Amino acid sequence: MREKMKDDSSQIVLASGLEGVIAAETHLSAVAGEAGELIIAGFPVAELASRATFEEIVFLLWHDALPGPGQLGAFQEELAARRVLPEATLELLRVAAAERVPAMDALRMAAGTTSLGIAGEPYAEALALVARLPTIVAAYSRLLGGEEPMAADPELGHAANYLYMLTGEEPGTESVRALETYLNTVADHGMNASTFAARVIVATRSDVVSAIVGAIGALKGPLHGGAPGPALDVVFEIAEAGRAEPVLREKLERGERLMGFGHRIYKVRDPRADVLAAAAERLYATDGDGELYRLALEVEKTALGLLAVHKPGRNLQTNVEFYTALLLHGLGLPAELFTPTFAVARVAGWTAHCFEQQALDRLIRPQSAYVGSKDRRWVPLEER
Amino acid sequence: MREKMKDDSSQIVLASGLEGVIAAETHLSAVAGEAGELIIAGFPVAELASRATFEEIVFLLWHDALPGPGQLGAFQEELAARRVLPEATLELLRVAAAERVPAMDALRMAAGTTSLGIAGEPYAEALALVARLPTIVAAYSRLLGGEEPMAADPELGHAANYLYMLTGEEPGTESVRALETYLNTVADHGMNASTFAARVIVATRSDVVSAIVGAIGALKGPLHGGAPGPALDVVFEIAEAGRAEPVLREKLERGERLMGFGHRIYKVRDPRADVLAAAAERLYATDGDGELYRLALEVEKTALGLLAVHKPGRNLQTNVEFYTALLLHGLGLPAELFTPTFAVARVAGWTAHCFEQQALDRLIRPQSAYVGSKDRRWVPLEER
Repeated sequence: MREKMKDDSSQIVLASGLEGVIAAETHLSAVAGEAGELIIAGFPVAELASRATFEEIVFLLWHDALPGPGQLGAFQEELAARRVLPEATLELLRVAAAERVPAMDALRMAAGTTSLGIAGEPYAEALALVARLPTIVAAYSRLLGGEEPMAADPELGHAANYLYMLTGEEPGTESVRALETYLNTVADHGMNASTFAARVIVATRSDVVSAIVGAIGALKGPLHGGAPGPALDVVFEIAEAGRAEPVLREKLERGERLMGFGHRIYKVRDPRADVLAAAAERLYATDGDGELYRLALEVEKTALGLLAVHKPGRNLQTNVEFYTALLLHGLGLPAELFTPTFAVARVAGWTAHCFEQQALDRLIRPQSAYVGSKDRRWVPLEER
Repeated sequence: MREKMKDDSSQIVLASGLEGVIAAETHLSAVAGEAGELIIAGFPVAELASRATFEEIVFLLWHDALPGPGQLGAFQEELAARRVLPEATLELLRVAAAERVPAMDALRMAAGTTSLGIAGEPYAEALALVARLPTIVAAYSRLLGGEEPMAADPELGHAANYLYMLTGEEPGTESVRALETYLNTVADHGMNASTFAARVIVATRSDVVSAIVGAIGALKGPLHGGAPGPALDVVFEIAEAGRAEPVLREKLERGERLMGFGHRIYKVRDPRADVLAAAAERLYATDGDGELYRLALEVEKTALGLLAVHKPGRNLQTNVEFYTALLLHGLGLPAELFTPTFAVARVAGWTAHCFEQQALDRLIRPQSAYVGSKDRRWVPLEER
């Protein structure tokens, strides 16, 4: 019954992290780690990220084609009409905020209530989830700060409205473009852990809301989406340009990992980092904190130099978390909203993977190998 | 970067259902499908199911040993003290009941709110989840029926209190024993899809609540836990003993699948079926509908005889859904509570698998194979 996998060296191994196991074929994105390439629905990420609206990316992932003008207008309207949260969802967020529940848990709880008022049809569920996630994150952020949630503005696009609901002010063009570039860049990324969780759940013929709630739970973990905040902490710690080298050198000599550098899959530069670096440069050139930006670049340059010396042969490069943190900080988002905002983007990929898995209609059910005791016999309580 | 798996015949295959891939080593349970054996933490399932309380099974799965008298008493108290739901959870159930949301969605939403008031420590989260799931299901069932939820009775054991909260009446010994035998029998079952979803989620270092919410979402699917109801439908359809053969024969000749017979893994008789058959026999002998029970047995016998003729070589046996439906129906549970009650049991295994995965601390992240377009180039909206 049980088969064991063969690895490169043809030894029998347990695939307990499933590394190297292909769990699905997908039309949605390709992560070529050795080449440093990311393809989203046929497009190199750099081709799309700084040009498309987020609505275009969602449409592309769902339909494998960019929308025409009429399609895009209709799709924007469909999404904009679904941004409002049910009263029960807002009430739950109020209770969570009063208890200061972490934002990802609040997002998971509130996203789960999308089953209220949604009839269970996959497309309707996916639309509602994509539309509601920014409303939930923005509402929760304001409630945590003691402010009332903002009503969505249906005249604004998806990204602009998210910033509007967060701040209460209509955002500038550069800010919207920067956020949209971020959302597009991280909208899908192969078979990552949260996407895989969504596929495992929906593969039982469960619903899309259940799948996305599972994915949000997986994204929360620090080994997945839960650690983009610390990437910028070192920049704040260094605080002034001259101290970058001694601070970083001391960290490396203490054996600390430098957050913001290195990725499990990309062995060369993460292609998303280039896109986000360019977006950050544009954003900080217009209305950002120029001094922080220059410091971040100096920290990056110094860190890469030191890593080349301290970790020779590892080829550690700036990863997506570093520029994500820089970009989202530049947009005024506090670090605790970085992972929720990641979810606001990745829900595009999650929902598209749900549709793909539903079309395949195949249960995902691996085996386990039992390594416990055998032949135990019952002992009555009084004899234990 | 990408490796492909080799199957029996040494061909390169995609493991899109992960069948035959071992995703984890476990001390919790062993499913030997060819032999028709199920081991739970070292015990053959028949050794435990009809003797242990559910609290003993949870303790066994969490600690790999049956509790001593002092340990059991303390554990029962810990669980009993956590049965009460926060007001926000009850409020959410009221809204869901008003919309007549399916019970598994209501359970998922309400279970997700366990993050309210729980500090994020894995053991505390697991205790709260095991304790609260029956309260949620019972409260929702009563709300759907237009009744107020019952307060838990801390003097009653876990299984007895569940029946009490469902019906408002203290259950008889035979009913409690029958429910407890069911809960014990299905408390864990290797690397099934919901357990796997829980492990994928918690493996990112996310929390236990997130993992269990994902598992509930997976269990909802008809390919996993979501179809124990229909197993008994044929019995109701046949309605009177004499018609079993013509009705079943007609179904088989129309090519219909007979619900309640056959299992993806067990190629001989499902060992859980024996345990549940014996429990059903005892239950119906004391206070059940004896006529229904005799009819069910006749349907089973007739179905097995016809299947042996119509599907030769398949060796289709009565599966766990058939006796689950018979047993839970005998306990007075409506079919829409069968899968939620499955969750009330399986949360024992889910939480134990979370602890096991947390001890391993390894991300579960397979690969995908990209089969989509390549080298697409951006086309401005007005040119599409």
